[in-house]
Amino acid sequence: MKITVEKAVLSKNDELAAALRERFRKLGLKAINIVSSPGSGKTAWLQRTMEILPESAALVGDLETDRDAQRLQESGRPVRQIRTAGMCHLEADMIARSLEGWDLKGVRWLFLENVGNLVCPVGFDLGEELRVVMLSTPEGEDKPLKYPPAFAWAEVVLISKMDLQVPVFFNVEQAVRNIRSVNPSAKIVFTSAFTGQGLREWLELL
Amino acid sequence: MKITVEKAVLSKNDELAAALRERFRKLGLKAINIVSSPGSGKTAWLQRTMEILPESAALVGDLETDRDAQRLQESGRPVRQIRTAGMCHLEADMIARSLEGWDLKGVRWLFLENVGNLVCPVGFDLGEELRVVMLSTPEGEDKPLKYPPAFAWAEVVLISKMDLQVPVFFNVEQAVRNIRSVNPSAKIVFTSAFTGQGLREWLELL
Repeated sequence: MKITVEKAVLSKNDELAAALRERFRKLGLKAINIVSSPGSGKTAWLQRTMEILPESAALVGDLETDRDAQRLQESGRPVRQIRTAGMCHLEADMIARSLEGWDLKGVRWLFLENVGNLVCPVGFDLGEELRVVMLSTPEGEDKPLKYPPAFAWAEVVLISKMDLQVPVFFNVEQAVRNIRSVNPSAKIVFTSAFTGQGLREWLELL
Repeated sequence: MKITVEKAVLSKNDELAAALRERFRKLGLKAINIVSSPGSGKTAWLQRTMEILPESAALVGDLETDRDAQRLQESGRPVRQIRTAGMCHLEADMIARSLEGWDLKGVRWLFLENVGNLVCPVGFDLGEELRVVMLSTPEGEDKPLKYPPAFAWAEVVLISKMDLQVPVFFNVEQAVRNIRSVNPSAKIVFTSAFTGQGLREWLELL
């Protein structure tokens, strides 16, 4: 019974996501779904990105608080918060509702910062054109092996907090091997919101 | 309909957890449920702990792989792995099944290392006597505000990777204020599996 209900929820989500995708396409807007553990540095990285991209906007999912939205608003770009109230991921209908009354004309990149969670968000299409997973160096090289659905799902893997590579003994070669073992084709970008490493490569990719 | 199903799942879990709790009590065993984000350092901390505690054992939950169980087995203590196969948390029936045929005589501390997830595990009682949440310094001081259910649920908050406090600009006072705002009574212990900071305080607490 539980499985049936979940399947129904997922297929309803897929319908809504398809409608969102069509809407984004008509607007000439690229939606980017970003997933990671809590504290991997999604918000810091989006702050750096949005400061450089005037035609960007963001929707930010969190269980509670609007801290991340506030941080992103410092970039001067349009930002809206979604409080998921206990839900561990964003869903397409939350995106659709949050877009109501929002004039997205002129926006070319809409970042969808998912709830900090490496497990739950992956099943839920948000109408995005690009799927990004972030792995921070302090989390360790083994995370792609331990959370393969998220890493297999992504088209881009951002390795964040590269400025901490030395103090946390992060092994880049091992990390790449682990990512490749679950996802042979994803683009891997080494980044640091602190030093700006990887920003140019990331922007070219967008 | 979805809510009803979830309630039924939760109340079934509570029954099983009550039975586990009774079983642990009769065995004179203290079960400790540990929750955190992926990569906060649960396994490294349990490695240090179990090396010192001969009468300890562990059950380790992961989506995939038995890497954490392998790491803990280096301590020489009994360890079993639970692969949750996509489930984002441990449940009481997984614990009960994993205990089958396991002679726990002489074990005084059974560590239940939950799946790396700050959202999902909190609703599921595993028959534990002590609830622990871990927050690593690179994740940032704001996580208690963003994931209040996990931090309100815990009786002990372990702040891990204190050796990285300086390179990640972790503000201890702010972190404590944030924890206190959602949980006025939890015991807070500052730890580092790398330097051994906090081990004595943690062992006294156990």
